[in-house]
Amino acid sequence: MTIKTYVIKKAREAKAAARKLAILPTATKNAALIGMAGALTARTEALLSANAKDLEEARHHKLSGALVDRLTLNPKRIGDMAAGLREVAALPDPVGRIVSEVRRPNGMRVVRTRVPIGVIGIVYESRPNVTADAAGLCLKAGNAVVLRGGSEAIHSNAAIVKVLSEAGAAAGLPKGCVAFLDSPDRRAVMEMLKLDGLIDLIIPRGGEGLMKTVTKNSRIPVIKHDKGLCHTYVDEDADLSMAQAICFNAKVQRPGTCNAMETLLVHEKIATVFLPKMIAEFQKAGVEIRGCPKTRAIVPGIKRANEKDWTTEYLDLILSVRVVKDMDAAMEHIARYGSQHSEAIITRDSVRSQRFLNEVDACAVFVNASTRLNDGYQFGLGAEIGISTSRIHARGPMGLEELTTTKYIVLGEGQLRE
Amino acid sequence: MTIKTYVIKKAREAKAAARKLAILPTATKNAALIGMAGALTARTEALLSANAKDLEEARHHKLSGALVDRLTLNPKRIGDMAAGLREVAALPDPVGRIVSEVRRPNGMRVVRTRVPIGVIGIVYESRPNVTADAAGLCLKAGNAVVLRGGSEAIHSNAAIVKVLSEAGAAAGLPKGCVAFLDSPDRRAVMEMLKLDGLIDLIIPRGGEGLMKTVTKNSRIPVIKHDKGLCHTYVDEDADLSMAQAICFNAKVQRPGTCNAMETLLVHEKIATVFLPKMIAEFQKAGVEIRGCPKTRAIVPGIKRANEKDWTTEYLDLILSVRVVKDMDAAMEHIARYGSQHSEAIITRDSVRSQRFLNEVDACAVFVNASTRLNDGYQFGLGAEIGISTSRIHARGPMGLEELTTTKYIVLGEGQLRE
Repeated sequence: MTIKTYVIKKAREAKAAARKLAILPTATKNAALIGMAGALTARTEALLSANAKDLEEARHHKLSGALVDRLTLNPKRIGDMAAGLREVAALPDPVGRIVSEVRRPNGMRVVRTRVPIGVIGIVYESRPNVTADAAGLCLKAGNAVVLRGGSEAIHSNAAIVKVLSEAGAAAGLPKGCVAFLDSPDRRAVMEMLKLDGLIDLIIPRGGEGLMKTVTKNSRIPVIKHDKGLCHTYVDEDADLSMAQAICFNAKVQRPGTCNAMETLLVHEKIATVFLPKMIAEFQKAGVEIRGCPKTRAIVPGIKRANEKDWTTEYLDLILSVRVVKDMDAAMEHIARYGSQHSEAIITRDSVRSQRFLNEVDACAVFVNASTRLNDGYQFGLGAEIGISTSRIHARGPMGLEELTTTKYIVLGEGQLRE
Repeated sequence: MTIKTYVIKKAREAKAAARKLAILPTATKNAALIGMAGALTARTEALLSANAKDLEEARHHKLSGALVDRLTLNPKRIGDMAAGLREVAALPDPVGRIVSEVRRPNGMRVVRTRVPIGVIGIVYESRPNVTADAAGLCLKAGNAVVLRGGSEAIHSNAAIVKVLSEAGAAAGLPKGCVAFLDSPDRRAVMEMLKLDGLIDLIIPRGGEGLMKTVTKNSRIPVIKHDKGLCHTYVDEDADLSMAQAICFNAKVQRPGTCNAMETLLVHEKIATVFLPKMIAEFQKAGVEIRGCPKTRAIVPGIKRANEKDWTTEYLDLILSVRVVKDMDAAMEHIARYGSQHSEAIITRDSVRSQRFLNEVDACAVFVNASTRLNDGYQFGLGAEIGISTSRIHARGPMGLEELTTTKYIVLGEGQLRE
């Protein structure tokens, strides 16, 4: 079987499964998710031994410690995957939810209701927990899923999908509803991206290279989970101790995430008071500071930030700092260098905060809070498949509802078009 | 200037304009739309003389009568464009509308609010009225627009855009917010589809070739307004006189539209009673009938329907007819041949109608009503830019709200990520 035939076969099975999944009762889907959770923990041994193969190859290929860590399964992580599936089972089912309902002058009732999207393709890099998380969310929203994980995790992912599929089938899910492309052939992704008649949506999760490949080659709609180059602007009217706590949290709490702060912008009026203490706290936590000329004049001895720093998502304990003339200059900087992800202003001035909220273009804009809070759980969505940086369909944290679409239902008594 | 440079220049101007448009007050946008409407009628002579150039070239290239008709402007059609802009001005502004608002356990308020998408690219074929309609809807929703109409209408479209731009600028709209690619070079579309950093959404309106070109080549998200291969299923429990009226309306009222019926499915139990009268009425209206073997046994002398008929969107006074064993067979036929556009069942049986509504996958599903009613005005959206056949972002009639996206606004008092 050629790689093309293989991918088409899997996608066809997923499409057939999607039609059945779309009309499954909520109880059946929930029972399946709970069954899958139980099966994952029950088969911990099998999962660990599959994972051991991936880890051995990772060592053989001399992958970095960080990558090996992301790849590693252990009983705790398997338990977390299972707990995630149980949480999704407990969430309300978005399918069938009524978005709007009107009675028109001609008497017909027009009801807009939530339905599954159909078949969702997930293209992701090495973390094997994504396999269970993404499959669980897609299934709960009534979608079949075609998974294509990184080749480093291929044995782990295949083992997880086998467990999920068997438990799903036992609970009455249609065959093929969790498809996994287990060929190491890299052309599998390219073939997948051509199947706009079979796959309805592609969600890529990973680095810049993956995003570019998918955006350039997909004939299927794409919702990107792309990078975050996030700023915090400390205004002249900020509560400086609050500002210090928020900025520290935004940078240090988990620097490798897309909603971590990469650049700190500080109003020139408070820079001489704020920056020395702030930078000292960062340096104590091991954060490397790269400053604009004014920052370096205030806090001597720090590295110079150059143009490239403003455009870099460090994902690390590095922070660029720029002193700005006013909020307009801060917003100009954000518009020019930001990635429309998570942007914050720290201020007590409500006129200025209102302007910042209105005028800054990002999937989430914060006043007096850490950009790290841009997250589906924090926002109350119950779960998230990621943070969409796309502007259409879903923007920001993407929960179960964003994994559905709508359908118009019209109830008539003989209405005609005049 | 190369065609690439030219398209990028226009898109950059549109992007700069979009940032300003996004925060314009509703009153300014409405005044601009009303000003544009007045300018279109005031400059009827100039528009007609530009249109005359297109019509002369159309005759020179021997375009069909139907195409020449679509292309033709006259004072009535110009008045209709102006009236359309005034109607859009009168609609509520979707920007700033609150989608949801929650207070989270940590005290932060999370508000999801509607914002413009940004820059919308419209690629369309010959009708010049689309230029004013699409620009008006996009602007009202706070978006800049890059228009690429069919080359047959290039003089008319350029003249319309000139009138709209001048009136818009006079009313305070930012320069470049209605961009028009007036180069006849066909590569302009291909260059446009590459600009995923500048254009946020592409809406193609036109035939199958255009849809394929755009889907295959766009790096920008696409919302398709694609074909409709729509069915009406007359159930064994249908009110047959209602069924006859609905089917006639669905086929004959305006056969060239995407929501017109192309295939009639009839339950075998009522076929002998229903079909002779129904088909006679169709034939009297000049509809050519192509039937399955059972249909032809009931009504002799009609043409045979072959496999190709089930997959053809006639857009004409032609109808394929198939007698089916039951509703499941009808739904199978629809799932196999339909385009998920507009599907109807005629029945008095509420259990069956409920199943049909649930199980048939389409952007709009009707009980006891004509598929021709799948329309933004009919559904109460106030206006529509078309009917989306995409499954994400907007599905079915696409109004002002579907020309926006959302942004999360978070109001905190020092909240951190734990």
